Amino acid sequence: MQEQRIRLPELRKRVCSAEHAALWIEDGMTIGMSGFTRAGDAKVVPLAIAERAKTEHLKISLMTGASLGNDVDKTLTEAGAMSRRMPFQSDPTLRAAINRGEVMYVDQHLSETVEQLRTRQINAIDVAIIEAIAITETGAIIPTTSVGNSASFAILADQVIVEINLTQSLELEGLHDIFIPKHRPRREPVPIMSVSDRIGSTAISIPPEKIVAIVITQKSDSASTILPPDHDTAKIASHLVNFFKDEVRDGRLTNSLMPLQAGIGTIANAVMSGFIDSPFEHLTMYSEVLQDSTFDLFDAGKLDFASGSSITLSSQKSREVFNNIGKYKDRLILRPQEISNHPEVIRRLGLITINTALEADIYGNINSTHVLGTHMMNGIGGSGDFARNAYLSVFATKSIAKDGKISSIVPMVTHVDHTEHDVDIIVTEIGLADLRGLAPRERAQKIIQHCVAEPYKQMLFDYLAEAELRGGHTPHVLEKAYAWHTRYRETGTMSEVAGTLKAVA
Amino acid sequence: MQEQRIRLPELRKRVCSAEHAALWIEDGMTIGMSGFTRAGDAKVVPLAIAERAKTEHLKISLMTGASLGNDVDKTLTEAGAMSRRMPFQSDPTLRAAINRGEVMYVDQHLSETVEQLRTRQINAIDVAIIEAIAITETGAIIPTTSVGNSASFAILADQVIVEINLTQSLELEGLHDIFIPKHRPRREPVPIMSVSDRIGSTAISIPPEKIVAIVITQKSDSASTILPPDHDTAKIASHLVNFFKDEVRDGRLTNSLMPLQAGIGTIANAVMSGFIDSPFEHLTMYSEVLQDSTFDLFDAGKLDFASGSSITLSSQKSREVFNNIGKYKDRLILRPQEISNHPEVIRRLGLITINTALEADIYGNINSTHVLGTHMMNGIGGSGDFARNAYLSVFATKSIAKDGKISSIVPMVTHVDHTEHDVDIIVTEIGLADLRGLAPRERAQKIIQHCVAEPYKQMLFDYLAEAELRGGHTPHVLEKAYAWHTRYRETGTMSEVAGTLKAVA
Repeated sequence: MQEQRIRLPELRKRVCSAEHAALWIEDGMTIGMSGFTRAGDAKVVPLAIAERAKTEHLKISLMTGASLGNDVDKTLTEAGAMSRRMPFQSDPTLRAAINRGEVMYVDQHLSETVEQLRTRQINAIDVAIIEAIAITETGAIIPTTSVGNSASFAILADQVIVEINLTQSLELEGLHDIFIPKHRPRREPVPIMSVSDRIGSTAISIPPEKIVAIVITQKSDSASTILPPDHDTAKIASHLVNFFKDEVRDGRLTNSLMPLQAGIGTIANAVMSGFIDSPFEHLTMYSEVLQDSTFDLFDAGKLDFASGSSITLSSQKSREVFNNIGKYKDRLILRPQEISNHPEVIRRLGLITINTALEADIYGNINSTHVLGTHMMNGIGGSGDFARNAYLSVFATKSIAKDGKISSIVPMVTHVDHTEHDVDIIVTEIGLADLRGLAPRERAQKIIQHCVAEPYKQMLFDYLAEAELRGGHTPHVLEKAYAWHTRYRETGTMSEVAGTLKAVA
Repeated sequence: MQEQRIRLPELRKRVCSAEHAALWIEDGMTIGMSGFTRAGDAKVVPLAIAERAKTEHLKISLMTGASLGNDVDKTLTEAGAMSRRMPFQSDPTLRAAINRGEVMYVDQHLSETVEQLRTRQINAIDVAIIEAIAITETGAIIPTTSVGNSASFAILADQVIVEINLTQSLELEGLHDIFIPKHRPRREPVPIMSVSDRIGSTAISIPPEKIVAIVITQKSDSASTILPPDHDTAKIASHLVNFFKDEVRDGRLTNSLMPLQAGIGTIANAVMSGFIDSPFEHLTMYSEVLQDSTFDLFDAGKLDFASGSSITLSSQKSREVFNNIGKYKDRLILRPQEISNHPEVIRRLGLITINTALEADIYGNINSTHVLGTHMMNGIGGSGDFARNAYLSVFATKSIAKDGKISSIVPMVTHVDHTEHDVDIIVTEIGLADLRGLAPRERAQKIIQHCVAEPYKQMLFDYLAEAELRGGHTPHVLEKAYAWHTRYRETGTMSEVAGTLKAVA
């Protein structure tokens, strides 16, 4: 095993237990771990750190690519080992600690973390913990199912711990494309002109002496938590497919559209699945996470190439794909998230970006993160990298949540992650609003008319009418802008009808 | 005159009056005009269009680079000729019409308008009206004091009207650098690796037969409306200079900092002037509008090179500069705003961006545009292009407005143009908050502590304390989030003290 997995012989003596490796971690350190959307995360050393924290004072700042699986965030939080976390998470236990103000969470555009690290504008990484399929003859690290921030973490850290995961196939070698921009002012263009362009190396080159410990693991990536498409997500997909058909008919797009990005989660995955039964062909993806739908599209012959930073699949799809990775490998690239989400490349390629809104307002501002404006769900992730620089920026959401007690379209969002300037299309199961070239008052009419179900549709028209009496480019009634949210907090529903009933009772 | 100014002889017969040229405009057309921050705007044909609109039904959609001078927006609005306007304006009369809902205003990131035009996602330009110093031997148009969107407007329009302005010196020839990205999917990197890189041509090449009319004018650019530095802006500049000194001391920046961008207006201009008496040297600018301070910095020997999209100066400075343009010319480039504001170049060069906030909130979200959340001032301009992709994003504002009746720092901004993710530094005359690497609760402490004057400082600490009782990553008391704004609307001040007094009275 070791000959294939640790090809530089002198490093084989660094193999140790997770407990032993965890001793490199000191209280107050900043740790950079692999892991992006539950894929390719360090799986055993973090748990050993949590064990230590149960009996000694050991708190770390944790940076990753994005969200982790294997209950790593949960276990570190419960052990009291987590003081600070960036740039993304999606764990319920950690989320609760963040919302109690116990863990300081820095929610960042996913392309930016390593820029800030590289210029020492945030605390330096002390130790990087990186999952790998193998270490090469020169001591370079070959990542597993994600690249995320792993390359820059390993390059910038003083010490590197490698988790070699035997459940991850050696066939993944060659999938990764590691490219690190030069330091300014000598920085050159990122030379990607097509989604399939390879511009870097297949492994992360670092001085081998920085690898202070190697741990052998056999834990799998956690499976994706997305739900299968349902009636509403199918309607959303259908509205979008019809919109793109019209764009092709009007000559603005060809039948292969533009490179596609889809955010993580059930809705974006369902929208992508909707392309299977579409007339579009030779599609390409330039995205961050590649989900089940990516491989469904490959299998349907619809997709020519997919570039991402991670592969996150359901249990069944994971077996199908990774047992047959050779079938897909020449049509896949995994890049550092700085590159998968790079504004330069996104703008150059002209992406169609499809991301999910937690709530949207009548003018098209988007809240992706904060429930009732205060409580963090996951984080902005890469949506800001993509939406700002897209050829066409789509945000999708079901029109209601909690059996209709919440309207996803509200008078004013309680937190803004994406301003109206970055939102071209809003689509719900009710319909699609094409907002390109429209002023706010026009956007409001389109969104309310096309995207909202009753009783909220009439309530929004009423709000808009009252707001327009007050005037302004973007009319609002400030003292009522959050009345729906405070009503929900007090009565359990945003609807005036039910709210009144409860108030009377 | 004509030999120098209209060098292609066959075009000389197209010279006509403004009234005659304006006859090319038809009701319902989309017109693209030169002009960026009052510089290089078309000056006489638009007024002739307004004259026509007084006696016939003539409404146009007007696109420009940015704001216009010479009362063009005012005159077209008063004549009822303006139905739609994008992507930026700063005229009081037009602003009032926008806020009444009479003119549909599309407030856009300044780098994006021509991308949407080029891909036909918004209405096509019918006629372009471009101010020029001359037309070359091949029929190419040499712009005057701005490039803005002029190049793409002229290339994309069916017909082009040129205003040759004899007050603009022929010495401006060679200043401009016209580069147009190729259509996707054949688009290549924008090859700017340094602020001084020239990558295009010095004139806008179009088929000469598209030039349907040439009008000779002698009207000057309107002077800049910025105010001179005052005590408060000097304090803001001083806080920033001290911050940068610390960054140099800590080895994160060199004494020439990084290329600087400064937004339009009094505060950003004053901040740049503050660098005159700083220890920094060999500064460079990669900005959109070059204001008085740019030339003050040249004269002080502090600035090596400035790249922009326009030159907008006060009357006195305008005489000094344009009568001695030869002195500055080899240190200046004017680019299309798509390039001056291009995310790719901004990120590659690593700019320090300095923009002005209308209001900021305790978490560092910025409102650049909407008074009390509803009424448009000017527009987002290029601030979104710059702040999102900056090495370091600074927002500056005076801590109070209207003699203290308004606090520029509020519990929650009523409109978000820049989310907390895009804001690294907030600076007022009170002090500077360095927000890098901080979570929202930490950002709030820093902003309130360092940037706010009493009585608002204590009021914000009180708000934050009450909000934190409710919990959340970004604590708020939604029903009180806009209480300051509604109090101002009702009582004329945001302050509780004065508000209470008035309520009692």
